[in-house]
Amino acid sequence: MSNYQSAELGKMAEIAKLEMGKVFLKETLGLTSCEISVNVVPKGFKMPFNHKHKQNEEVFIILKGEGVLTIDGDRIAVSEGSVVRIAPEAVRTIENSGEGEFQFICVQAKENSLEQYTHSDGVIC
Amino acid sequence: MSNYQSAELGKMAEIAKLEMGKVFLKETLGLTSCEISVNVVPKGFKMPFNHKHKQNEEVFIILKGEGVLTIDGDRIAVSEGSVVRIAPEAVRTIENSGEGEFQFICVQAKENSLEQYTHSDGVIC
Repeated sequence: MSNYQSAELGKMAEIAKLEMGKVFLKETLGLTSCEISVNVVPKGFKMPFNHKHKQNEEVFIILKGEGVLTIDGDRIAVSEGSVVRIAPEAVRTIENSGEGEFQFICVQAKENSLEQYTHSDGVIC
Repeated sequence: MSNYQSAELGKMAEIAKLEMGKVFLKETLGLTSCEISVNVVPKGFKMPFNHKHKQNEEVFIILKGEGVLTIDGDRIAVSEGSVVRIAPEAVRTIENSGEGEFQFICVQAKENSLEQYTHSDGVIC
C-alpha cells in the first residue's frame, strides 16, 4: 500500500447533493486512526436521533452556517469557528438552526488513544 | 470534568491573524484521541521543513484555495474538497500555491488505534 491516499470530494456544494449531505472518509482513504465525516446540510436538517458512543470521542468543527448541538440536554449554539469535544458517554444530536446551508466536520477517534503528538510525534527531516 | 468542552475560534479570517495562521485544538478542548489543527495561511506560505511522524496518521482536508502537498517527493495538487491520508513514515510538507488564502484542517491520531466506529461504536438512545 502506498504511504498516502488522496481523493477529491469536489466543492462543498457537491457534498450537499449526496444522501444525508455527508461523506465519510475512513473507507475513502483507508484511515486506521479515526473516522471523519464532512457534512453540508440544508435548512431544516436535524439528525433524526440522539446517540452516544461506546469508545470514541467526537470533535465537531463548524465551518459555515448556524446550528445547535444538544449534549446531555444542553443546547449549544454553534456557528463558523465553533469547536466542540464530546466524550463517548454524552448523548448528542445536531441540527441546522439557520436560514441557509450548515457545514461541519466531525472527527471520531478512540478516547485516550493519543500517546504523543506534534513536537513529540513529529520528526523534522 | 464535563462530558463536553466547547470553544469559539472565531471566523476563519480571525485564524489568519494568528501566529503561523494556525490553531491547535487538543489543548483548547482537552482532546485525548487526536490533535487537530485549523489552518488559514496567506499567499506564499510554505511549511518551512519536511517532517514525518513516529506513530500518527495524518489526514488533510482542504477547505479553500490551492496548495501542494509534497509526500515522499510526489507533488500533489490540492484544492477545496481534496482529502489526503498520510502514513506516519511518509515525509511531507505543504504549501499555498494559489493567489489567495489557503484553508485546511489537519487531523493526527495514532495509526491503527480505531477499533470500531459509527454503526459499531454509536448507540442510538
